[in-house]
Amino acid sequence: MQIERPYLLVLGDARDQLAAKTAGGIAHWRPDWCVGQWRLAGCKADLGLKDMDARQARERGAKTVVIGVANRGGVLGKDWIPLLVQAVEMGYDLASGLHQSLSAVLEIRAAADKHGRKLIDVRIPDREFDVGSGAKRPGKRLLTVGTDCSIGKMYTSLAIEKEMRSRGMKADFRATGQTGILIAGSGVSVDAVVADFISGATEWLAPANDPDHWDAIEGQGSLFHASYAGVSLGLLHGAQADALVMCHEPTRTHMRGLPHYPLPPLKDCIALNESLARLTNPAAKCVAVSINTSALDKQAADRFLKETEDKLGLPAVDPLRTGVGKIVDRLGA
Amino acid sequence: MQIERPYLLVLGDARDQLAAKTAGGIAHWRPDWCVGQWRLAGCKADLGLKDMDARQARERGAKTVVIGVANRGGVLGKDWIPLLVQAVEMGYDLASGLHQSLSAVLEIRAAADKHGRKLIDVRIPDREFDVGSGAKRPGKRLLTVGTDCSIGKMYTSLAIEKEMRSRGMKADFRATGQTGILIAGSGVSVDAVVADFISGATEWLAPANDPDHWDAIEGQGSLFHASYAGVSLGLLHGAQADALVMCHEPTRTHMRGLPHYPLPPLKDCIALNESLARLTNPAAKCVAVSINTSALDKQAADRFLKETEDKLGLPAVDPLRTGVGKIVDRLGA
Repeated sequence: MQIERPYLLVLGDARDQLAAKTAGGIAHWRPDWCVGQWRLAGCKADLGLKDMDARQARERGAKTVVIGVANRGGVLGKDWIPLLVQAVEMGYDLASGLHQSLSAVLEIRAAADKHGRKLIDVRIPDREFDVGSGAKRPGKRLLTVGTDCSIGKMYTSLAIEKEMRSRGMKADFRATGQTGILIAGSGVSVDAVVADFISGATEWLAPANDPDHWDAIEGQGSLFHASYAGVSLGLLHGAQADALVMCHEPTRTHMRGLPHYPLPPLKDCIALNESLARLTNPAAKCVAVSINTSALDKQAADRFLKETEDKLGLPAVDPLRTGVGKIVDRLGA
Repeated sequence: MQIERPYLLVLGDARDQLAAKTAGGIAHWRPDWCVGQWRLAGCKADLGLKDMDARQARERGAKTVVIGVANRGGVLGKDWIPLLVQAVEMGYDLASGLHQSLSAVLEIRAAADKHGRKLIDVRIPDREFDVGSGAKRPGKRLLTVGTDCSIGKMYTSLAIEKEMRSRGMKADFRATGQTGILIAGSGVSVDAVVADFISGATEWLAPANDPDHWDAIEGQGSLFHASYAGVSLGLLHGAQADALVMCHEPTRTHMRGLPHYPLPPLKDCIALNESLARLTNPAAKCVAVSINTSALDKQAADRFLKETEDKLGLPAVDPLRTGVGKIVDRLGA
């Protein structure tokens, strides 16, 4: 799955900023890839990009129209369909993170077939994978893991890639979810592969590399999440991570979507991830904790980070507040 | 996925008994469902059933032709296709455990459409699942787990169902793999569901039931298998098993398909399965060990079972040699 750049980001008629979260992530992490934002009447989101339609963006070199907006039910707005068909006719590829497949919309598929354009549904893997081999491969890999879903794993991985590159290290973010794939321009939505191939897809995604090259792999779910732990374990085994970074949100009261399940203690979650990771990489080690402190004021955030460091004997950062320099310090330049 | 009975078992031109392993399992566990075996010229397998073709079996009431034979590459033999088309025309459904989908063979699909017959590819789930909820549900459940793949989990689960029923207990085998599904007449191939839905598919497969009803769920893979552990963990969480039975083969030198991975010690494998199972059922407990001692002589087998019992403090059985009575004793009548 390879997405041509630069992008025009469709915000459609997003009812608020949160509905355009995916597009927001792309604009934040890859501003150079974003020619502009395309908003329809009634749109309440704004990414601070230049407003333009498909024609204007095309003149500025945009190659892919990216639908980075969540709708009720994850389906395409009816109003968008003729506009997307026109975009295909102008020569655009389309990429979407919605649940509804672009190819399932007959008008869009017909236009893409006729004009030889690609329709990229980033939630749906576009190739088959081998089962995981467990064979050791060169290159260094870091995997973000978590006490829960949606807790900062993608953000932390991207921040680490950025920090490593700024220090001249060889590093690549490896995307395993829809927003990450649009930000990376490639990747595999590992929770959408056939169950037998979770670890195999991860081995493919983060392949053998130079001995001093780091893959910063986006984790998914949590070993303690009753719905998704299988995905997390396959990813952990396939990653063969040298370094784990544990992600956490200190004010969350229960596992996402599971009101009766509390979050695990950080210490237990680190121990279990390390222990299971060592099946495929006996040197696997948690090197740091990444805390999303956005719900705390600065003082409380600082205190929580300090207490966490003291308790666990590991660096604790908030990528937004403190950056991830302390993590990369531990991984050598 | 519901398969009409009774069956006619196709052995085709199986080159040896092992190639007809799936059909052999059906004939062993469900002799009453098998009207006969259908062998083509050159077939070297024999299940001891009456030889007959589709026409003869139809007269004896057979409703589904079951392709229970493994071929090189898991594809349908070319010679079989016209015979299977004829079977569909006679009113049969077809069920297959091959990798190649029946529906992918145009002649077969056309005949099934025309005559309104079902084509059942047991490897391919025929419905969508919800993500696992982790919500506690009534009924008792037993899950077979293992130190490795293909180590006796299906056989043990079926033996437990049979023993429970012979004691008048309410029990159902729940199939999670191709052979098991053909033996049960229904089930879900959990390694073939989309990764996000492993635990959800398992919750669906073994739903709420009477408080004194047991589901004997067929396990898959191993938490220590670098290729498939994600499937095993999703299954463990979805099963919410009260009782785990650990399956093992004492002469195996490495994990199946992974020459560099040794089998885990039984004790560690039990401890990890119990510990992870307790996320969704805090009462989960390993109640016994099921050993496939077929590679040992009787004396060595008896010794191994005795030593295992002494070391682990759990009953150790070989379903073939000793039966599983000792396991069911622990589960109450």
